[in-house]
Amino acid sequence: MSLLTIGTVAFDTIETPLGRAERVIGGACTYISWSASYFTDKIHLVSVVGDDFPEPELAALEERGVNLEGLDIKKGEKSFFWEGRYHSNMNARDTLVTELNVLADFDPVVPEAAKSAEYVMLGNLTPAIQSKVLDQLDGSQKLIVLDTMNFWMDVALDELKEVIRRIDVITINDEEARQLSGEYSLVKAAKAILKMGPKILIVKKGEHGALLFHEDDIFFAPALPLAEVYDPTGAGDTFAGGFIGYLAATGDISYKNIKKAIIIGSAMASFCVEDFSLNRLKHLNGKEINGRIQKFKDLTHFDV
Amino acid sequence: MSLLTIGTVAFDTIETPLGRAERVIGGACTYISWSASYFTDKIHLVSVVGDDFPEPELAALEERGVNLEGLDIKKGEKSFFWEGRYHSNMNARDTLVTELNVLADFDPVVPEAAKSAEYVMLGNLTPAIQSKVLDQLDGSQKLIVLDTMNFWMDVALDELKEVIRRIDVITINDEEARQLSGEYSLVKAAKAILKMGPKILIVKKGEHGALLFHEDDIFFAPALPLAEVYDPTGAGDTFAGGFIGYLAATGDISYKNIKKAIIIGSAMASFCVEDFSLNRLKHLNGKEINGRIQKFKDLTHFDV
Repeated sequence: MSLLTIGTVAFDTIETPLGRAERVIGGACTYISWSASYFTDKIHLVSVVGDDFPEPELAALEERGVNLEGLDIKKGEKSFFWEGRYHSNMNARDTLVTELNVLADFDPVVPEAAKSAEYVMLGNLTPAIQSKVLDQLDGSQKLIVLDTMNFWMDVALDELKEVIRRIDVITINDEEARQLSGEYSLVKAAKAILKMGPKILIVKKGEHGALLFHEDDIFFAPALPLAEVYDPTGAGDTFAGGFIGYLAATGDISYKNIKKAIIIGSAMASFCVEDFSLNRLKHLNGKEINGRIQKFKDLTHFDV
Repeated sequence: MSLLTIGTVAFDTIETPLGRAERVIGGACTYISWSASYFTDKIHLVSVVGDDFPEPELAALEERGVNLEGLDIKKGEKSFFWEGRYHSNMNARDTLVTELNVLADFDPVVPEAAKSAEYVMLGNLTPAIQSKVLDQLDGSQKLIVLDTMNFWMDVALDELKEVIRRIDVITINDEEARQLSGEYSLVKAAKAILKMGPKILIVKKGEHGALLFHEDDIFFAPALPLAEVYDPTGAGDTFAGGFIGYLAATGDISYKNIKKAIIIGSAMASFCVEDFSLNRLKHLNGKEINGRIQKFKDLTHFDV
């Protein structure tokens, strides 16, 4: 089944306690697409870049099965750029520079062939743009996943709530779940958010794993304890890409398979943070991925 | 197999966002013993109280199979008292009052019959007192578990390291693991701490669950997401009590059984926080406990 992803394709400059990476490849849609590409090669990407974005990077995505018909390459303009510095605990970061560039007037156009994509991943962008993408779809979608952040809750809550009504799965972090619902308890926050429209809430807790809420069920995927986290950038997007890529590949959105998809997303995210940018994510193989999934099983399974 | 527990038996005044409990029953050893008593009735308690401690509370412990021969009741003196207030997120608390009272000169005497206890739980106390207990044992112990806290790392690090050398399992929280090891990464912290003597490190992360480190293996027990946490006091001790109580009852310290014991400890802790003091912990039955353990399985198990 085919997968449509939207989000940023961008440059990042990243500083963590373990090093600095200058003007490297980043962007939510880049991480999502690379991660999903290990499970499916029927991916449509909708985004915008300037003509400063390296051609080999685009060719590499195409080789992974990512269709770039929906990528708008603006001549004479510059790609989105973000610079950030992580605190010593890696759980918090300061944004040092944000240059919107081509993103300022991003008007997403979904190619004809992608309008019937069964699986849709709306990466973190203004809710209005996420809605614009939904407006262009043919309504036959099986699963629409939305990622967002506290910033849109602060400045565009009404538009955000409108797009949340139209999607199936929302992924946010614990503080965002609290902000969106007004509830401190995540169990109560989940009840409130699931009333806003989505069937599933995924709460990302970084090094503390992820919680999946669906009706009265709760499932917990741990994060793999790692000796070193080099760069957390893109971990959430890599998680989302693995999650939806696996679902698109299997075409099975049963609760049982969604639990497995959460583990696969967590496994992919655990690779992402082991190096800067997409360095680790670009060179994985099936054996490594399966070995990592087995580690998650060893980490949590017990006999009663 | 028999279990020896040492620690405080005390009064607490507790304020949380959901209420206040005035001069209620508390103390590490009380929580440990009640929790362990659901699995074994061969428990020796070593502690000290004043004659202000209610006789019915002691009788209730005895009814649960807790032998109080090692409980020193000081005539005309007052029991240890602690008063604290939890922050709105329940993860942090301020100590408002600490009255050591009888604890100031606590000189633990292990009864003859308890010197050969196969399982020993050293609740959080000064490392010197924990050592004094170990000095009195006959050396035939199967498993010695130690709980401690950052305060002893600040004021008695050498004594603490000395007692750590002599035990099998240490339970601390994530910040304490970082402080004790000087490593931020918990994987590296665990390697450093396991070199100090213990075979097993349990890192308690409160609402984020617990990590078990043993040689190169890592096991993760989640915390059960709850709609409301009324009072986190004693949750760590209740966890420890369920953990060692189950191990003492089964007499099996294989890695496989230790993983199950961690889940059982987590299940017991999830009851503890549902009400103030020992209110919830005093009225459980096997069916409730097994149902809770099944919830932990549902929370984490997946098919690959």
